[in-house]
Amino acid sequence: MDAGEYIKSRVEMVEKAMYPEIPEEPKEVYGMLRKFIERGGKRIRPVLALASCSACGGKEEDALPFAVGIELFHNFTLIHDDIEDSSPMRRGKPTIHMEYGIPIAINSGDALYSIVWSSIVRRATPEKLKGGGMIMTEAFRRVAEGQGIELNWYRENRFDISEREYLEMAGGKTAALIGASCELGAYCAGAERERAALKDFGEKIGLAFQIKDDVLNLTADPAKYKKKIGEDIDEGKRTLITIHLLSNASGGVRKKVAALLGKKKKSQKDIEEVIALAKEHGSIRYASEYAEELVEGAKSSLGALGSAEGRQLMGSLAEYIVQRER
Amino acid sequence: MDAGEYIKSRVEMVEKAMYPEIPEEPKEVYGMLRKFIERGGKRIRPVLALASCSACGGKEEDALPFAVGIELFHNFTLIHDDIEDSSPMRRGKPTIHMEYGIPIAINSGDALYSIVWSSIVRRATPEKLKGGGMIMTEAFRRVAEGQGIELNWYRENRFDISEREYLEMAGGKTAALIGASCELGAYCAGAERERAALKDFGEKIGLAFQIKDDVLNLTADPAKYKKKIGEDIDEGKRTLITIHLLSNASGGVRKKVAALLGKKKKSQKDIEEVIALAKEHGSIRYASEYAEELVEGAKSSLGALGSAEGRQLMGSLAEYIVQRER
Repeated sequence: MDAGEYIKSRVEMVEKAMYPEIPEEPKEVYGMLRKFIERGGKRIRPVLALASCSACGGKEEDALPFAVGIELFHNFTLIHDDIEDSSPMRRGKPTIHMEYGIPIAINSGDALYSIVWSSIVRRATPEKLKGGGMIMTEAFRRVAEGQGIELNWYRENRFDISEREYLEMAGGKTAALIGASCELGAYCAGAERERAALKDFGEKIGLAFQIKDDVLNLTADPAKYKKKIGEDIDEGKRTLITIHLLSNASGGVRKKVAALLGKKKKSQKDIEEVIALAKEHGSIRYASEYAEELVEGAKSSLGALGSAEGRQLMGSLAEYIVQRER
Repeated sequence: MDAGEYIKSRVEMVEKAMYPEIPEEPKEVYGMLRKFIERGGKRIRPVLALASCSACGGKEEDALPFAVGIELFHNFTLIHDDIEDSSPMRRGKPTIHMEYGIPIAINSGDALYSIVWSSIVRRATPEKLKGGGMIMTEAFRRVAEGQGIELNWYRENRFDISEREYLEMAGGKTAALIGASCELGAYCAGAERERAALKDFGEKIGLAFQIKDDVLNLTADPAKYKKKIGEDIDEGKRTLITIHLLSNASGGVRKKVAALLGKKKKSQKDIEEVIALAKEHGSIRYASEYAEELVEGAKSSLGALGSAEGRQLMGSLAEYIVQRER
């Protein structure tokens, strides 16, 4: 089975188990949540949890309670992140806070976070709940930490971010949950020896996915890309690209880039100028190569898996997830 | 030992276990949370959990992981409720969103909710985690449901609330967590037979506490009261008092009250007029008596406890918690 087919069938399995986790009543609380999670999404986290379990010789169903919990948690973070970033749209529709206002959107996210745990606690076996819960809670903390670090950069208008700081932020905000998905799969298969390798694999492809996303934002084919080219520059987002540019440009250029990124209202010309400087300083190439190396590193972590079929499955998923054009 | 002394010593025990649950790093995420939970509070929920455990013949320390988790959860709800209600102050200091802005305040609450579970999962024994987790997740869901129902009343500008609807809202928003605290105490003592009675006890005193709070808001001695008399009327809060008034006043008066409560900017005279009408229609007396009956009902639930000492401890805590002057 190729990666695309595998993902499609597992997404169905996850959605079938996940949708009934949202209660029917009270409708004014859960109606909008049900519709929100039914908007879809790539579901890469729960699919990786099931695949990791299978790659370690376990039964995919054994990882399903945690896979569902992780996907519900991911959706909860989207609701709150969209408020925090003032994003008007999510998956082609208005964000919850645009439709219902900020107070209800905050509470909807909280209700969904509560469902994450009621789902896991009810569905996981007592034997797996403690160990699986430890993996999940560590990741959930790191996601909030990563988001908190980034929000603080915006609040303090900081651009002097080191690569180490950036990797700590993105490692929490994006990579931790994907690492936990893979680790949970191994854990549910009882594959204690393979847990660390799969966690490492997941964190690396999670980070690679994020960096590729940032590269694509500046280099994609506008005809194929869903967002506006250069939107990240417009929003002053700190990425591996801007960090490389700021630390490798000479004094005058660095000042100029920092001033452009810090401008509240940027013109199309400002955005294009930053992109041109990033190209000129090799910052986009640097980030692309960084992501490629992460994928290679992730694949070499798979060497710890005993099964050749398991290595093949995980490797093809890694390629599929990280390679995107839009 | 009297109730006041008992509470004081158990608050110390809870705080000693709770404060180290907040990590040190990253400081920009956890520093403000540490300070927030150190602002204090009555800590009635964790104290009731420990007392319920003891009243059922258990060791208080066995209930401590859940007691700490419940108090951390309560603090998380305060951070988000304060954003949702646009409250400027909490425990005599600016709310987190006033100090750091809404995006960081939302994320701080989320970080604290993540700590709730990392604390419980790490500290609870595997044997108790599933059963205790079931009690907690049910309560956490009901808190978000109650808050969601109330936010929806505000959004739709609804005042035609029935007493049944009000009790569902307050039963979730306020009573569920106090009921869960008491039930968890019994559960951790292994007192399966006494769980339902203690849950019922906790929900009743939780609701009584809320209703007394609402009565006090209209009738307290201004010299002793911490808030502004009539603030609830000013904010258009739906309470058992206003619901009784709206359903017992004649047509003309009802319309007038609904119009006054719905006004965006209320004068001091408007507020005083609603309070006078509530007195005239017996609505304040009705709510007071309702709360008293709940306390009596809560005490009779204690009949299920085998230990006379246990009944005495829980009864004196109920009196202490519900009787307040400010």
